[in-house]
This record gives sequence, structure tokens and C-alpha cells, in this order.
Amino acid sequence: MRKNDFVIIMAGGIGSRFWPMSRSSYPKQFHDILGTGKSMIRMTYERFLEYIPRENILIVTHRRYRDLVKTQLPEVQDSEILLEPVGRNTAPCIAYASFKIRQRNPQANVLVAGSDYLILNTEKFRKDVELGLDEASKEPVIITLGIPPTRPDTGYGYIQFHEPEEGDNPPYFQVKTFTEKPDLEMAKTFLNSGDFLWNSGMFIFSLPTILSAFEAYMPDLYDIFEGIHRRLDTDEEAAAIEDAYSRCRNDSIDTGVMEKAQSENIYVIPASFDWSDLGTWGSVYEHVDQDYLGNAVSGNVVVYDSTSNLVRMADQGKLVVLNGLNDFIVVDTGDVLLICKKENEQGIKGVVADVRKRFGEDWV
Amino acid sequence: MRKNDFVIIMAGGIGSRFWPMSRSSYPKQFHDILGTGKSMIRMTYERFLEYIPRENILIVTHRRYRDLVKTQLPEVQDSEILLEPVGRNTAPCIAYASFKIRQRNPQANVLVAGSDYLILNTEKFRKDVELGLDEASKEPVIITLGIPPTRPDTGYGYIQFHEPEEGDNPPYFQVKTFTEKPDLEMAKTFLNSGDFLWNSGMFIFSLPTILSAFEAYMPDLYDIFEGIHRRLDTDEEAAAIEDAYSRCRNDSIDTGVMEKAQSENIYVIPASFDWSDLGTWGSVYEHVDQDYLGNAVSGNVVVYDSTSNLVRMADQGKLVVLNGLNDFIVVDTGDVLLICKKENEQGIKGVVADVRKRFGEDWV
Repeated sequence: MRKNDFVIIMAGGIGSRFWPMSRSSYPKQFHDILGTGKSMIRMTYERFLEYIPRENILIVTHRRYRDLVKTQLPEVQDSEILLEPVGRNTAPCIAYASFKIRQRNPQANVLVAGSDYLILNTEKFRKDVELGLDEASKEPVIITLGIPPTRPDTGYGYIQFHEPEEGDNPPYFQVKTFTEKPDLEMAKTFLNSGDFLWNSGMFIFSLPTILSAFEAYMPDLYDIFEGIHRRLDTDEEAAAIEDAYSRCRNDSIDTGVMEKAQSENIYVIPASFDWSDLGTWGSVYEHVDQDYLGNAVSGNVVVYDSTSNLVRMADQGKLVVLNGLNDFIVVDTGDVLLICKKENEQGIKGVVADVRKRFGEDWV
Repeated sequence: MRKNDFVIIMAGGIGSRFWPMSRSSYPKQFHDILGTGKSMIRMTYERFLEYIPRENILIVTHRRYRDLVKTQLPEVQDSEILLEPVGRNTAPCIAYASFKIRQRNPQANVLVAGSDYLILNTEKFRKDVELGLDEASKEPVIITLGIPPTRPDTGYGYIQFHEPEEGDNPPYFQVKTFTEKPDLEMAKTFLNSGDFLWNSGMFIFSLPTILSAFEAYMPDLYDIFEGIHRRLDTDEEAAAIEDAYSRCRNDSIDTGVMEKAQSENIYVIPASFDWSDLGTWGSVYEHVDQDYLGNAVSGNVVVYDSTSNLVRMADQGKLVVLNGLNDFIVVDTGDVLLICKKENEQGIKGVVADVRKRFGEDWV
């Protein structure tokens, strides 16, 4: 076990592109989106339990998901669940967790990860993570895990890295630029150039490094948490955090730290594992078992003249008959039925907004 | 009120083309297929109540639907519900009802009708029916109500009638031929010739006429009911009918009587009312309100980029989102979800057979 290593699992998202299965009362990371028998957050947690001490794995989530976390991760102690009163993107989340870790181990090495990724080849993942943690313990660097792109996806951030010197073959590279969601033409250029990686949203650093970075690039945020840090791990923590978050802006770690610090100590490890952020039903469809007609279904589903559909039923006993349906996502949660052409899935976020407006919060 | 006139409402069908809404435990005629607030059989019953004495309206159905009839038609007395132990098509059904009516009024005039038709212009319908009943009381004729065809539909029987003499303009015509479900080419020829009508399945006759016809053309059937008629309207009726039906063949009134008798005393009244047998979801779609995108929906339905769909939800509170779906039938009964391209709807009968085989009787 790596006693000096910590993991921050960010689990506060809503996953609205997975509506109607993912709801603000029960978001994506708590669902068994892939049909493996385990929720996304459970799979994430177990992946780290193998080599990170349990008490070093922190879950940061919205306070309304506290019971979901405790139910799905019964091993987790209350002191390992960090409850946000409101979502303020990744920078406050990582700052909160970093100050918490500082109380316990000011020299910790830290991996920040999402709670709803698919990671295949967990051994390779572990090697990449350990490489990053080892480097972060030696050098004042922030290391991202970058995913070799396979298509000109416009939904990801792209990381450009410095080509190594001729003959050099380092396991990681200095970062040149970050580019948030490019347009299709630019994404194609990135893909073809060969020196871009997708931003996985996973970061590795030592605590002194990230705290220095916050102090340098996000001094307001740093000061907020520095101001309340004595109340952490006391009865006043919730009130202190409520106060702190009320003063935090909505900032991502990418724009707040990485993009500003990029010319100095930001590195990227090209991932050797297979990864998907499972950002859409379409990406889930790509990663689950399909029958010979390309249908990925769960439950009692009978198909006629139907191919390439993804069917997800909350009630596994319900009988579904598809006849003449091709390339659709069908999700039945009991109270909502979604039938969406796969190519229209980017519209689901808009659907959620409309549904909220017309039918109210209970439906989203 | 027309005290000499009787109506036989045949309500024993399964309506499997309306699966999954229509189930053998709760078939089509007991559903509010059109979304009017009334079931088909309720609409049928009320249509006749206006001018036929209530006690002259008989419901013939399978015995398992007795409670459904009593619930939906609380006015009906037990003596007006004729329970079949097994479905044997229309000839035994009409024979049973005819022998029952003979006990009460041997000179009755009788209209036979289905329980699951759509009839618009009920006043015109009444006029056609009364014309038929009046004629049947005067002449030994069997009169069918024929529907002027609007398309070369291959799902109906066609009735060819004798053109009247030049200058003649009779309200009904002698029938020349009956043709069951023709192929498309023949249906087109029929439609273009102008002297064919669709067989509505509604017949009018006097009791002496139909009993003579049974005796002449279906003597076995006649003898079966003649043999048990003394036990009708006694405690032994159910046993007698069980016995009678066990000896009846599966015969329709069309092939058993009409086609054999056609050269003699069979007439047809071209209907002045609008009629549909609502034989498929597609025909329902044609007859219900559609929005400006051609979607005919009930309940909370939100559509994007979707046109010409029929949506029927058992749970009116359930939210349905369609995105990129065109020309489909969507039926959600709670335990079954059907998503079927409209043009494939003829396949629903086959679906039902498959589902019965794979999942059992509970599902069909």
C-alpha cells in the first residue's frame, strides 16, 4: 500500500446527458450504466482500493448524495466523504480536498479522478498512476493523464505536448497547450498531427505543488480555504465550507491552474489503458455487449427488423418489442420513456432543460 | 322504441393486432382505443340504446369477459349476456343468440354487429339500420351493411352488388358475390369498378329468415341448437351451451350462410355513415386527433424532430420524450413496451405468437 498517496474522487456531477436514467436526485455515477452489476462510483472506488489505503481515498460530492455514497460504498467513513453545499466546478472541489489532506499529510501525493469513467486494463492504469505519483513526489510538477485520441471528437479538451528530442523516449511529456472543445475542423487537425491527447480530467500532483499553484494562479480561492482551514475536521466544518463555497466562483482546475501554469511544470502521461468518460449514451453503446444485430439491450427484449439500438430498462421484467427501429436509444425508467435517435443524443441536454421548464424539477 | 327489433353485439374477439394494449385477458373492445373516455363496447352499446329497448340488446362474449361486460355495461342484465365457453367464429355465436331470441320473440328483427367498430354519423347509421330492419320484417331477406371503399384494402371482404336497372335508384341492392380478402391487384380492380362494397360484418334479418337459412345451409349447426333449445333460459343453459359448442365447427356466417345463399335473398345497403373496423393501430391513428406534426399522443409527450407517431400510454402521468422518431406506434402498458414502425404493423400478430411461445400466456 502506498501510504503517502491519496485519491480525490469527484462525484458531484449530474450527468444530464444520461437523462432520464441519470436524475439530479440519482445521478449517473450512482447507476450501473454499463450493466456490469456495479455502479460507476463503486467500480471507481474498488479500482483504487487495490493499492491506495482506504482512508486515503476521499469522495467529494454534493451533500444531497451523502446517503447514496454511504449506501454504495459502505466501507467509506464519514471523515472520507467531503460534502459540497453547492457545485462550483473542479477548482473549489480540489482545493477543499487538498486542504483536508494537508491536515493529515502535508507531503501527500494526490490523484484527482472522476467517478464515472470507464477504464479498461486496470493494471496498465495502475502503472500510469503510480508513475505519475512517483514523479510528483520527486518534482514540483502537475501531471495529467492524456488519452490518445481515436477520432476527432469535439466533446473533449485537447492537450498538445512538446515532442521529445530525437532519440529520447520519455514516459511523459511537457504540455504545450490546452484547448477546450475545438470545432470539428480543428479536432481533425489535432488528431492528424499526432501530438495531441484528450484531457481525461485526471491530475496528479504533490500537495505542496498544488497548494503553491492555487496560491499563485487562484489566490482568491487559496485565501478562502486558508481562511477556514482551522475549522476543517471540527464540528464547524460544514458551516465553514458553506461559507467558503458561498464565496467561491465557478472555476475549473483546467482554466484556473493548468492553462495558466502550462509553460512551466505541467506534464502529460499518454495513457496506456483504454478509457472512456462515457459522456453520452452513444459512448456507452460502444462499450457494452451487442448482439449480432448490434443491439445492446438489457431485460426481456424481442427485436424484429431492428439493429444498433441501445435499450435500458429500469424494470428488468418488462417486455420490450422493437419492430423496424434502428440506431435508437430507448430508456424506460418507469416514470419516463425516452426514445431518441442516436445521432440526436447531443440534444438530450436541451430536452432536460425543456422538461425542467414544462414539468418541473421532479422530472430531471 | 322498436320493440320487435333486437341487436346481437358480438364481443368475444381478442384483438391481437392491438397487442400489447389488447390482451386475451382484456381485449380491444373493452379499451378506450380512441381516447374518447369510453371503451369501444360502451360506445357500441350506447349507440343502440337510443332506439332499441335495452332488454333487446344481447351481448355475446367469451365467458371469461363476463365481469368486464358487467363492469363496463352495468345496465345489462345477466339474461342479456350470452357466454360462450370457447370462440367458434360468428356462425355459432349468431345461432346461439338467434335461438335465445326465438324464446322471447319468434318474429323478431335482428341486427348483428361487432363491438369494436368506429361509427361516425350515428344518425345516418340509425337510418340505415332502421331501413334494413323494416325491410327484413317484410321480406325474407338477409341484408348486410356495405361500406363504400376508399382504398384497395386487402384486409376486408368485398361484396359485389347487381347494378340496378337504368332509372332505378333503390336504397339497397341484391348481392352478386362475396370475396374474402383479395390480393392487391384484385382489390384495385374492385375499387375501380364501383360496384363493390366492403363487408362491415353487420347483418340484418328476421328470425324466421335466419333460422331457415341455418336449416338450409348449416343443418348441423341448426340441429345442435334445436337439440338444446329447451334448456336455454334454464339453470342448464351453461351446460347445454358447453355441450353445443363442443360439437360446433369454427364457421363464419359469411362462408356458412351468406356465400351459399347469395343468389337468392341477400341484399346490401351501401352505408351512408362513416365506418372503420379499427382493425389496426394504423386505422386508429387515422381516426384520432393529431397535432400539427401528425403525432397522435395521449399523456405527457414531448416531441423533437418527430412526426406521424401514435403514442398510447397506460400510465397517463408518465413522461414520454420522442427525438428523431417518425411513423411509429409506441404503446406502453406498464408491463410491455412496443415500438413498431407503422408499416410493420401487420407483423404484430406474429409478434404475439412469438411472445406467447417465448414468454407464455401471461404476456398475450
